[in-house]
Formats: sequence, C-alpha cells, structure tokens
Amino acid sequence: MISVVIIGAGNVATHLFKAFSKANSITVNQWFNRNLNSINSYKNEVEIIDNLSLLKDADIYIIAVSDDAIAELSEQLPFENRLVVHTSGSVSIYDIDKKQKRGVFYPLQTFSKDAEMDFANVPVCIETIGGGEHYNLLKNLALSIGSPTKKVNSDQRRVLHLAAVFVNNFTNQLYRIGHEITESEGAEFDLLKPLILETAKKVQELSPYMAQTGPAKRHDKKTIKKQLKQLENKQHKDIYELLTSSIQQTHGRKKL
Amino acid sequence: MISVVIIGAGNVATHLFKAFSKANSITVNQWFNRNLNSINSYKNEVEIIDNLSLLKDADIYIIAVSDDAIAELSEQLPFENRLVVHTSGSVSIYDIDKKQKRGVFYPLQTFSKDAEMDFANVPVCIETIGGGEHYNLLKNLALSIGSPTKKVNSDQRRVLHLAAVFVNNFTNQLYRIGHEITESEGAEFDLLKPLILETAKKVQELSPYMAQTGPAKRHDKKTIKKQLKQLENKQHKDIYELLTSSIQQTHGRKKL
Ligand SMILES: NC(=O)c1ccc[n+]([C@@H]2O[C@H](COP(=O)([O-])OP(=O)(O)OC[C@H]3O[C@@H](n4cnc5c(N)ncnc54)[C@H](OP(=O)(O)O)[C@@H]3O)[C@@H](O)[C@H]2O)c1
Ligand SMILES: NC(=O)c1ccc[n+]([C@@H]2O[C@H](COP(=O)([O-])OP(=O)(O)OC[C@H]3O[C@@H](n4cnc5c(N)ncnc54)[C@H](OP(=O)(O)O)[C@@H]3O)[C@@H](O)[C@H]2O)c1
Repeated sequence: MISVVIIGAGNVATHLFKAFSKANSITVNQWFNRNLNSINSYKNEVEIIDNLSLLKDADIYIIAVSDDAIAELSEQLPFENRLVVHTSGSVSIYDIDKKQKRGVFYPLQTFSKDAEMDFANVPVCIETIGGGEHYNLLKNLALSIGSPTKKVNSDQRRVLHLAAVFVNNFTNQLYRIGHEITESEGAEFDLLKPLILETAKKVQELSPYMAQTGPAKRHDKKTIKKQLKQLENKQHKDIYELLTSSIQQTHGRKKL
Repeated sequence: MISVVIIGAGNVATHLFKAFSKANSITVNQWFNRNLNSINSYKNEVEIIDNLSLLKDADIYIIAVSDDAIAELSEQLPFENRLVVHTSGSVSIYDIDKKQKRGVFYPLQTFSKDAEMDFANVPVCIETIGGGEHYNLLKNLALSIGSPTKKVNSDQRRVLHLAAVFVNNFTNQLYRIGHEITESEGAEFDLLKPLILETAKKVQELSPYMAQTGPAKRHDKKTIKKQLKQLENKQHKDIYELLTSSIQQTHGRKKL
C-alpha cells in the first residue's frame, strides 16, 4: 500500500485524487489546499485540510500547485527527510526545499477540469536524486493508476515540456487559425475535425517525417502562391510562410 | 444504383474504389489509369483500361488525378454532356472541360495508400454548377459510402483546403519539430503521442479558443524566455515566437 498526501486542488491535483482513489494499492491520507472551498465536496472521501501544520505521515507528498508557488510551499512543510515531489514539466527539482527527499512526478498530458482522463494515456516522467528506492516508489505509484512511466533527467524533462508546447499549445493555435479562416467564408470548422483527428492518429504509427504531405513538401509553388494570396491576415501569412519554409528545410529542396 | 467510372489510381482513387466496391448501391463500371500496372491487381473485380476511347456510359466520371493533370485529362474525354467531377480542394470547377456537366467531389481528409479509411470520417464537399439534380446524385454517392456531405461554393472549398493545410500539414510539422527537439536530448518522441491525440480530441468538443492553455496564453514571460533560450535552431525559435505572439493576439494582453 502506498500512502500519499495531495497538495493543491487544480486540474492535476483533482485528476490525481480521482485516479488514486480508484486504485486498490494507494491510500490518500489527506488533501491540502490553501482554500478549502475547492475540495469541500470531497470531504466524505478524504480528510481535507487548509493548514500545513496538520499534515500527517505519508510515503509521498505531491505538490500540484502553480509553478511559481512550488518553492515557497515546499519550504513551509513542517517536517523533513520525506519524499516530496512536484508535478511540473519546467520547474527544477531543486526548487523543492533541500531538507526533503526530492522528486518530480510529471504527467505528460493536458488536463482540464471537466474532461475525464484515462491514466493509461498519461505517461508519467519521473525524476529523482540519487537512490533507486524513491524512483521505484514513484514508478509503482504511476503503475498503480495504469500510467506508463519514464525515468528522465532534468534536461530531458525540460525538453519534453518544450516539445509539449509545440505539439499541444501551438498545434491548438493552428486549429484556431483553421477556425478563423473557415468562418471568414461561412464554411464550417466542423468539417475539419475528422482531418484533425486523423492527422494526430497518423503519427501514432508513422513518424511525422513520413506522414508529411501537401504543397510545401511537394514544393508546389503555384498552390503556395495562391494560398498566400488568399490569406488576408498578415500574421497568418507569416505563419504560412514560416511553416512552409520549415517543411522544406526538413524535406529538402526538390531538384527541378 | 449509381454507376461510376474512376479515372486515376493514386491515394484517393484507390480508397474511393474500395469504398464504392463495398457499397450496395454503387457499381464501378470501369477504372482508368494511364498506366495499367498500378491497377492490374484489381482486374478480376473491375474492368481496367488505359485508353480513354474505351470509356463506357456511367452516371458519374470521377477524375482523381494530380491537380495539374485534371484540365488536360477532362479535355480528352471522348464524350460530352456527362457528369464529370474532380476530387481536388484547390482546382477550379471550371478546369473541367466545358462540354461536360461539371462538379467537384472533394473528400476533406488525408489519404495514404496503406492506411484503411472509414468514409464516415471523410466529409465530402460537393460543388456543382446550376441544377440540383447533379448535386443530389453526388450527395447520394457520398451517403452510399457513409460519408457526411456539405454543399460548398468555390470560395468555401478553397478556404477549407487552405485551413486543411494549417491543421494537417503545418500541425504535422509541429509534431516533427517536437520529434527533433526531444531526440536532441535523448528523450523519446513516443512520450508525446498521447498528448498529440488528446489535443486533437479536445477540439472535437471544445472550440480551439476554449481549449487553449500554456505559457503563451498565460503570458508567462519567465517560461517563454527560458524556453526560447533552450531552443538552438533559429527557425524553431522563430516559430516559437510567432505562434506565441499569435496566441497572445487571439487571447488578448493580460493587464499587469
Ligand atoms: N494542467 C495541465 O495540463 C498540467 C499538465 C502537467 C503538469 N502540470 C503541472 O501541475 C501543476 C499544477 O497545475 P494545474 O494545471 O493543476 O494548476 P491549476 O489548475 O491552475 O491549479 C493551481 C493550484 O495551485 C494552488 N496555488 C496557487 N498558488 C498557490 C500558493 N501561493 N500557495 C498555495 N497554493 C497555491 C491553487 O490554489 P487555489 O485553488 O486556492 O487557487 C490551485 O489549487 C503545475 O506545476 C503545472 O505545471 C499541469
Ligand atoms: N491525397 C489526399 O490526401 C487528397 C485528399 C483530398 C483530395 N485530394 C485530391 O485528389 C486528387 C488525386 O490525389 P492523390 O493524392 O490520389 O494523387 P496521387 O496519389 O499522387 O496519384 C495521382 C494519380 O494521377 C495520375 N496522373 C498524374 N498525372 C497524370 C496525367 N498527366 N495524366 C493522367 N494521369 C495522371 C497518376 O497516374 P500514374 O499512376 O500513372 O502515375 C496517379 O494515378 C488530387 O486532385 C488531389 O488534390 C487528395
């Protein structure tokens, strides 16, 4: 049995609480938030607290609060030498107060409050300092909620977080631009949804390199020119040009 | 029963042939390609030809060849006043020779030779000139293979094709950059695959506007600066800056 305390009540903390509660080999001893309102509805399932001095023993303390608050919160913990982890992709493991055993339990996924999350689709990147014991404990925690795990170092975690910005935030902005462009002519964004899904599915099997198609890769100058002319928004034009050039960089110039 | 002739033997033609063959209310009378080798393996299922003068009667002739070859091929058809459509997102309906009844049957999806395609996930955009009769025939053809349909005009079709470049080709290039960045530190691109899928799934229900998260939207200057520093490739930096600025354009400046 692995005992945990959850600190914070945002997207990640809430999804973790639900997953831990369902797992047979995990007990959530306490759930802390600075503001009890957010977790009040769980009070029959778990002890909820808003005072760090009430914290009890546990195998793992998980700090799932905003990146900026992690260091300060970890300093305030009223004990030492226990395993304390944060869940951030970008915050240093050394931001956790050095009187604790430090670790990172970074779920590489995008969480929103309402959407259900199957943790089989949440690879957990684990970073610890030294000893394999903490690594194994965190790995078992992840496995108990069905998550695949990966041991990473700080550079690898940072780079995964950066790549996540490209494939999640930036990709989502391309969807947004698709939305703007279609609506400008009274066409329906909905028609693009199956294509969006298929594009994401394709790279589950094929490398993005192999999956690429379209006018940029074909160096189809006529279509590229026509499409640039079609775009009215200057920034959309810039994005079109830059990503076209990036694709051509990746796939090489076609000899004419 | 709707009778069709397929012209061309690429990705689209092949997927259409398979879907039409399975549909009860469609017969494929003939399959033309300039080069019989590509369709030789289907000769027991359908009459294959490489000579346009052998073309027989059919309700619909579908020209699914490279964009540049559509006009020329349609000119060579040895008949007139029949319903001839192409399958391109960007080619004008008027590229089809004017002695025919012209139409467009544009499947808004990305096809590859090997991957199976369920036509329920292929919205077909239909464009015709004048008469509702041809529109209805093309609509029934699409419905017979399980595809949703949408009546579009030329501007809407062009804009859908342009948006498709953003959500398919450009998105795929962001996946590619994610691949490059992770591998540069010996991290695994595979870890990003569930996130890629979830990002695409999110906008099936939520608008891309609502689905946005991350440092750009939060105007998290510290993280943005750190991540820009992390990027070694000049073009990746430019893409990071441009898409960050695009997100901030969409979501407005945060008051400090
Ligand atoms: N969201 C994701 O998709 C995702 C994915 C992977 C990793 N992460 C990481 O997981 C962590 C939490 O992210 P999240 O999305 O769950 O955040 P969130 O939904 O914004 O929630 C933030 C939580 O932090 C608490 N908090 C903020 N400032 C605090 C302070 N000074 N002292 C105490 N508590 C404070 C908030 O308390 P109140 O309820 O009182 O406001 C809230 O419970 C972050 O490190 C993030 O980088 C997030
Ligand atoms: N691929 C997609 O995801 C997709 C999606 C929507 C719409 N479309 C549109 O569908 C059409 C076909 O695309 P595709 O991807 O199927 O193409 P493709 O796989 O590249 O195949 C092109 C076909 O056109 C034939 N062809 C090329 N030049 C020709 C010429 N001068 N005379 C006669 N035949 C010629 C080729 O014949 P050979 O076999 O002899 O080379 C081949 O059968 C295009 O208009 C495209 O814009 C494609």
